[in-house]
Amino acid sequence: MTYCVGVRLNAGLVFLSDSRTNAGLDAISTFRKMMVYEKPGERFMVLLSAGNLSISQSVREILQVEKIPNGDDEPITIWNAKSMFDAVRVLGSAVRRVHEQDGPALRAAGIDFNCSMIFGGQIAGEAMRLFLVYSAGNFIEATRETCFFQVGESKYGKPILDRVLTPTTPLDEAAKCALVSMDSTLKSNLSVGLPLDLLVYEEGTLKSERIAVIDEHNPYFKMIRTTWGERLREVFEAIEDPRWDGGDAAHPLLAESARFEPMRKITTPDERIV
Amino acid sequence: MTYCVGVRLNAGLVFLSDSRTNAGLDAISTFRKMMVYEKPGERFMVLLSAGNLSISQSVREILQVEKIPNGDDEPITIWNAKSMFDAVRVLGSAVRRVHEQDGPALRAAGIDFNCSMIFGGQIAGEAMRLFLVYSAGNFIEATRETCFFQVGESKYGKPILDRVLTPTTPLDEAAKCALVSMDSTLKSNLSVGLPLDLLVYEEGTLKSERIAVIDEHNPYFKMIRTTWGERLREVFEAIEDPRWDGGDAAHPLLAESARFEPMRKITTPDERIV
Repeated sequence: MTYCVGVRLNAGLVFLSDSRTNAGLDAISTFRKMMVYEKPGERFMVLLSAGNLSISQSVREILQVEKIPNGDDEPITIWNAKSMFDAVRVLGSAVRRVHEQDGPALRAAGIDFNCSMIFGGQIAGEAMRLFLVYSAGNFIEATRETCFFQVGESKYGKPILDRVLTPTTPLDEAAKCALVSMDSTLKSNLSVGLPLDLLVYEEGTLKSERIAVIDEHNPYFKMIRTTWGERLREVFEAIEDPRWDGGDAAHPLLAESARFEPMRKITTPDERIV
Repeated sequence: MTYCVGVRLNAGLVFLSDSRTNAGLDAISTFRKMMVYEKPGERFMVLLSAGNLSISQSVREILQVEKIPNGDDEPITIWNAKSMFDAVRVLGSAVRRVHEQDGPALRAAGIDFNCSMIFGGQIAGEAMRLFLVYSAGNFIEATRETCFFQVGESKYGKPILDRVLTPTTPLDEAAKCALVSMDSTLKSNLSVGLPLDLLVYEEGTLKSERIAVIDEHNPYFKMIRTTWGERLREVFEAIEDPRWDGGDAAHPLLAESARFEPMRKITTPDERIV
């Protein structure tokens, strides 16, 4: 599996990916899942990929040469697209090309055509945009209400993103949030692994110098892993335990709750369930 | 979907289940997923179920009358089983009976025979035991190393269980942990919903009086939902943000990391990926 997250904030974009790929538990390898496409001052785009590695590698290869027709004008590529919307259409087209090439043989072998990608960035003259691209080459765009996308093993790390991220979150705080989300995922799932690629893009710069490769020796991520776990336990312990005897509990567990019956209790073999 | 968790501690057992069932987003209903089988002083068993509701309802119905052969002796039922191991075999047999009855028609309709259950309790003379039962009627048992099982929409709520639960966790703390885990799941997933059924069983008692039906007005769960989210944010904010300029950061993000190359950056259309 894989875990990747992309965030679109007012201040910029944050991308984080792990690098574990597995085909069963006995075939685990390290493959990086982040690719940056940059013409400094003109365009800056980042691609994160999850799913079948042969598909996503092929998509990345083809993306470099993929063109979509543009009437009488020059065909559109990711390098000349005037908008991120056109650029993501090129990516969708690359996905469909790989599907044409490999889809029938994969299907015959009983393998799903499974790939999902996060693609975001900025092209001069346009606002930053962030997309989630599906294996049919279609895509959706992040909005103010839903400012992040995840692909791969996304559930373990979703609660903290849900609680923290809004469009006004500062960039470095969002990077921290993505790393905490990754930490929860690493802790609960073997199929996600280090090193991580972290990229933070500041709105309007059309380049990024904030790129970090994070391995198990990285002091900041080590601090997150230790501190977050410890603090979580402290917070957890600071919350009062439920009190069954009622007593003087500030927050009684056994409140009057007339609207629901207790769950069904069966006490003899002859009793019927319903 | 559903989310249920069962925990086996030295001090006893904790069971928590939600009550949302959905067949698509426009067919959401409330069905309770906890069933208690109790002969006070002799046996106390709890069943939590997830998966296809028609299957789990049928299993519960059949479980009341299911018998497995026992040589020349009286067949074994959940009401006369001398061990939890025998009782869970009866449950596995009930699952297989439903599979015989409904499996072919479900398969013909393209529907998976999908059910998973947590079954635990204590029979006089034996230690407490906790099992996870699969849709083939086979099962595994919780151990000291893995002291909880989850069924249904389990990933959102797994990190906190991983971090907190050990066999020595006190009962009420484990109940609190299960409720926090449920809170994370409720926050991130629409297909899990209130009311909750919470049951805490104390080792050796062979009955339980600690049963709570928790709806949105429950003072304790309301406190958990507010406090946990707030404290999580506070802890999150108290952790230092990553510093890109290095400077005097206690935990620099950009440490020397000689072992890995930064991710691939492509800057011209002609550049090859590999």
